[in-house]
Amino acid sequence: MASLLPGARVVKAFNALYGQFIAPDPRHEAGRQVLFLAGDDAKNTVKVLTSEFGFAPVDLGTLREGGRLIQLGGPLSALHAFKQD
Amino acid sequence: MASLLPGARVVKAFNALYGQFIAPDPRHEAGRQVLFLAGDDAKNTVKVLTSEFGFAPVDLGTLREGGRLIQLGGPLSALHAFKQD
Repeated sequence: MASLLPGARVVKAFNALYGQFIAPDPRHEAGRQVLFLAGDDAKNTVKVLTSEFGFAPVDLGTLREGGRLIQLGGPLSALHAFKQD
Repeated sequence: MASLLPGARVVKAFNALYGQFIAPDPRHEAGRQVLFLAGDDAKNTVKVLTSEFGFAPVDLGTLREGGRLIQLGGPLSALHAFKQD
């Protein structure tokens, strides 16, 4: 996808969560909804923004290495979890 | 560590969890305690065993690639989360 958008700064996030876990308030009594993200750039902006939304962003590293973990069929794909702060 | 134990089948698990999250019953109302693991062999035994304990094992892949994620300072180190089943 990054190759289709030359010059864009791509951060992979949310793709590993089903909509039912994105739509409601991500702050729960048991913790915040974990949001995995990966990217080579601009990650801090996404981390700050999604933290403000109430998610618990977890930076998995580069788009290539981290992105693999949250792609369809990856080990962290569809892992819905509340982070215990 | 694996190199110190020739012939042994090494599965990396639990190292990324603080004791306070290992000691109690891993089954909570909000979900099961996520347990990341990595290894080249014998992972299924550990998955079955830890599932019986009540954890939610998540297989991160090989000892080399997955193990890096849960080593000290790795992106999934000390990520304490309840899996929503």
